[in-house]
Amino acid sequence: MEGAVSARVRVRRHADRGVYEQAVIEQILDEAYICHVGFVADGQPMVLPTVHVRVGAAVYLHGAVANAMFAAAVDHSVCVTATIIDGLVMARSVYDHSMNYRSVVVLGVAEDVTDPDEKRMALRALVEHVVAGRSREAREPSDSDVRSTRVLRVAISEASAKIRSGPPKDAAENLALPIWAGVVPLRLVAGDPVPDELMARDIPLPEYLEPERVTARGASRN
Amino acid sequence: MEGAVSARVRVRRHADRGVYEQAVIEQILDEAYICHVGFVADGQPMVLPTVHVRVGAAVYLHGAVANAMFAAAVDHSVCVTATIIDGLVMARSVYDHSMNYRSVVVLGVAEDVTDPDEKRMALRALVEHVVAGRSREAREPSDSDVRSTRVLRVAISEASAKIRSGPPKDAAENLALPIWAGVVPLRLVAGDPVPDELMARDIPLPEYLEPERVTARGASRN
Repeated sequence: MEGAVSARVRVRRHADRGVYEQAVIEQILDEAYICHVGFVADGQPMVLPTVHVRVGAAVYLHGAVANAMFAAAVDHSVCVTATIIDGLVMARSVYDHSMNYRSVVVLGVAEDVTDPDEKRMALRALVEHVVAGRSREAREPSDSDVRSTRVLRVAISEASAKIRSGPPKDAAENLALPIWAGVVPLRLVAGDPVPDELMARDIPLPEYLEPERVTARGASRN
Repeated sequence: MEGAVSARVRVRRHADRGVYEQAVIEQILDEAYICHVGFVADGQPMVLPTVHVRVGAAVYLHGAVANAMFAAAVDHSVCVTATIIDGLVMARSVYDHSMNYRSVVVLGVAEDVTDPDEKRMALRALVEHVVAGRSREAREPSDSDVRSTRVLRVAISEASAKIRSGPPKDAAENLALPIWAGVVPLRLVAGDPVPDELMARDIPLPEYLEPERVTARGASRN
């Protein structure tokens, strides 16, 4: 995609943070649990959080067929943004405080996926995106499940990533101020799984749900 | 705000998850580090991640004056959405998988804050939102800092929260399937702070940056 970056997704503020390699864009989309989808409804921009999954060079989203907002997005321009927070950047001055993060913006038209096989593939992939290994065990969607779910596909053809990492960047005249400066790393951590009370007690926790396995999500995909 | 909920922010899908109490909306905005701001640029919905802060019944955002996208949002309708992921909901069937989350959607017009005192207040509050206690120590913005920063204010007058919590909700016919079901809790955790290499070694880590203090963010605001 390099060399063909549209003006709409080119990173202008902090241009040095812009990344346009498809592999980097895909990695961020794969690691982020959810995205925020933007669309226009009656002239009003709307932003809703939803789980996504990348398959090849497309992002899939899903929602109930009865979801009026999702229906309104079909065949319209949307913006899919996924963001991972990596740390809090403490500078000497209020002005230079920042965050370390990795984000992706994908612009495209939301296409309604009508082929049942592609819908099934996407629904399984959505579960697999959240917890790798889960889709092999969970009960597959019924025909009725598939019919009542809308699946949207957005091609990753106009997209960019923006990444900030590393220490604070204070102005030279502030470096000697006696103020602690540095980065507080942040990461999403899985806790001990809470079994459903309605479940038989003799069903063991699958390996793929052990907290360190769930947590390793990012690392395992790097 | 209850009783005066606009159709645009009323939660329709999973209406039982809709919450309209101002205190709940404020708590979610206070706990979330960042929001995703949606606006329309040349007909295209754009969604960008940015830090926010709630002060009273308004959300403040900021960006460089030179930031063309932020400039385009001034006096236009925006959508400010903040989302906290609390857990991964593992159901027996693919169809019933979900996440536990708390999200807020605020619709409003982005007002350009031009009063320098209000801008200063907002810039300090933004730092304080990220790490409580930090604004008392960090160097205050200079007049030049304030001039080169755009601060936007969005009133929290048309807003709603959506919350999912608790165990999976499988269909009755799936409850007996021999599949582990439950919730994997997720939370954002602070790691050991990484001091800036350019900082004098004798500056101690402030108490408010100890990982457990940073982590307690949500709890301390509940």
